[in-house]
Amino acid sequence: MNSSIVNTNYDLLPGSYLFSTIAQKIKEYQGAHADADIIRLGIGDVTTPLIPEVIKAMHNAVDEMAVKGTFRGYGPEQGYDFVREAIVRGEYTARGIEMDPNDIFVSDGSKCDVANIQELFTENVNIAIPDPVYPVYLDSNVMAGRAGVLQDDGRFSKVTYLASTAENNFQPDLPKNPVQLIYLCSPNNPTGTVLSRETLQKFVNYANENGALILFDGAYNCYIQDESLPHSIFEIPGARTCAIEFRSFSKTAGFTGVRCAYTVIPHELSKLHAMWNRRQCTKFNGVSYVTQRAAEAIYSPVGWQQTKEVIAGYMRTAGVIRKELTAAGYTVFGGEHAPYIWWKIPDGEKSFDFFDRLLATCEVVGTPGSGFGPCGEGYFRLTAFGDYERTCEALKRIREKL
Amino acid sequence: MNSSIVNTNYDLLPGSYLFSTIAQKIKEYQGAHADADIIRLGIGDVTTPLIPEVIKAMHNAVDEMAVKGTFRGYGPEQGYDFVREAIVRGEYTARGIEMDPNDIFVSDGSKCDVANIQELFTENVNIAIPDPVYPVYLDSNVMAGRAGVLQDDGRFSKVTYLASTAENNFQPDLPKNPVQLIYLCSPNNPTGTVLSRETLQKFVNYANENGALILFDGAYNCYIQDESLPHSIFEIPGARTCAIEFRSFSKTAGFTGVRCAYTVIPHELSKLHAMWNRRQCTKFNGVSYVTQRAAEAIYSPVGWQQTKEVIAGYMRTAGVIRKELTAAGYTVFGGEHAPYIWWKIPDGEKSFDFFDRLLATCEVVGTPGSGFGPCGEGYFRLTAFGDYERTCEALKRIREKL
Repeated sequence: MNSSIVNTNYDLLPGSYLFSTIAQKIKEYQGAHADADIIRLGIGDVTTPLIPEVIKAMHNAVDEMAVKGTFRGYGPEQGYDFVREAIVRGEYTARGIEMDPNDIFVSDGSKCDVANIQELFTENVNIAIPDPVYPVYLDSNVMAGRAGVLQDDGRFSKVTYLASTAENNFQPDLPKNPVQLIYLCSPNNPTGTVLSRETLQKFVNYANENGALILFDGAYNCYIQDESLPHSIFEIPGARTCAIEFRSFSKTAGFTGVRCAYTVIPHELSKLHAMWNRRQCTKFNGVSYVTQRAAEAIYSPVGWQQTKEVIAGYMRTAGVIRKELTAAGYTVFGGEHAPYIWWKIPDGEKSFDFFDRLLATCEVVGTPGSGFGPCGEGYFRLTAFGDYERTCEALKRIREKL
Repeated sequence: MNSSIVNTNYDLLPGSYLFSTIAQKIKEYQGAHADADIIRLGIGDVTTPLIPEVIKAMHNAVDEMAVKGTFRGYGPEQGYDFVREAIVRGEYTARGIEMDPNDIFVSDGSKCDVANIQELFTENVNIAIPDPVYPVYLDSNVMAGRAGVLQDDGRFSKVTYLASTAENNFQPDLPKNPVQLIYLCSPNNPTGTVLSRETLQKFVNYANENGALILFDGAYNCYIQDESLPHSIFEIPGARTCAIEFRSFSKTAGFTGVRCAYTVIPHELSKLHAMWNRRQCTKFNGVSYVTQRAAEAIYSPVGWQQTKEVIAGYMRTAGVIRKELTAAGYTVFGGEHAPYIWWKIPDGEKSFDFFDRLLATCEVVGTPGSGFGPCGEGYFRLTAFGDYERTCEALKRIREKL
């Protein structure tokens, strides 16, 4: 095949996806240390089994697929009404937000949706992303040729970075350059911090005044413990004319291996609503029926109670990480309304060096902050998704050995 | 939002996805005829329930998800080894084709894969598509700005159309213009015809000699009844340096509502293999674990036997459609190695007019051939996925009323 036909934007990406790089490092360590007892507080993957209500719903759906009268073939690309309506009731009506089920597009994952949404825009649109943040917003735009080239400072030349650091209390300033697409993530991955109502209102006003669009990733909203903090961008007046919201069941209900998420495009954004509908109808064939019944089950009264208990379990773990690291004299952020703890590395050590040292001395794995953007340098992400006892053991090792 | 930031290539598409248009026509007819008894031989959706082996595997997998020791979170983006290895054994080794499990990328649907693959190529690459064919190859390239504009003859200005008609025995000629990406589909959707070994060898030679790439859609290969016909592009010498293959469980095993497919990129195409791996790791999070166990179960001895029986059932229906239409004096193609029958409309009637007349006189739904490309005009697609008795009833109506 003639190599001149390939999309050379891929060559602008760093060598591999962050978490693949880390998996490789762990594999190498294990290869060299056959008896290693590694505790993984790195990747954001859940470990608690699915709740009984979800298991019951999945068994029922599987049984339906075995019988002629109840077998389901292709479903609507946008998702079945039963799950779109359950989402509206459980996530929006319950918080006093009006929402039309037709504005909910169900998918097999938020990663797909946040990566695919950029297809709806021109190549020369200017984007802004928080720094640090989940790498997919940037990588998907690099692949599409929208980011420019990687510079020596670790930043892409055409991207506006919205610094979200301890110095600004993790509340980024408005972009100084003109931008038309603004990614926001709250609670933030990796910092575990929440954007305030004031910050969100400032961005919504900016977007409406400048014809920009906010792409709001709320994958971790269910971890917000303070009900007065905004869970959804649509709690902010004016958001329906300038914002799209991404939500996932991965962290809400342990669905990382089940695969279900949704994207909310208000019908006020009629052009984008129609384009996304066309995109999904042309390039996607809907979510597994069994998975959609599983998602619906979360919103039954019993399902919701069981879901809240699982989340409370992870938040208990987050609390212990915060408490232990603080007691050991470290500075930490996040972990109060999110399953992520953002650990400030002492003495100016680089985060990838710290990764290696933590693995070598404690056999504990986390994620180097610089993997999430230049402002993540000097920080380290721990997650609260691990087993509680094992996490306590990891903290013991950190206090004794690091 | 400033409308100047949207991808205007979407505006070049026809108004809606083919099958959405047809669904709308049916809905309107039903609205006007409350007692309508419509028989749907239109959309290519399966109706036979999942086989018992698959149901058993899904229940087992759901039970695993309920227990801490066996719960699965994120799986590999490329698919679990157990299913990649089962695919290699069942689909390739069984037909004497060598295949590396690492060349198999498992996904949630062939529609996604065939629509997303174009992302790996430059915007100015020249594409060739069969005419008629499944609309996704063209539509995904229109959205990416690669097709040019729709002309009065129903063709996009930058696309090379490979006529596949009764006149050439549905064996398209090589492209006359230089092209770098060639989509092929065998058995073809909608014509139900199979590309011969000679035709495929001709295209493989062309691709290798001209630095082109073949994108081979084999979604219906399991319906091929003659074992001497090629099931896979990789049966053709030279294909591993110039071809990617798409396969799906949708029609093989009734998975249209279960969601599983796979794409084969030989490691000989090392650059594309790496790029697709990167694309999937960045924009996709793997297939539902329960679904992957379901796919694996097809390849057990019992599962394979049950699967073959379901396919034989559909092929029995296809045979009846062929026989009855032929007996009624019509000319038909396909239906011998595919679940699709390509019905020549008599007297030069347009296929969308014929759709309306068939619905009005017989309350039978099919798919207008022109929806699959200009060469589909004058033809009509029927599918063998419907209930056997209902299909016989549809044929009775056609013989008596049309």
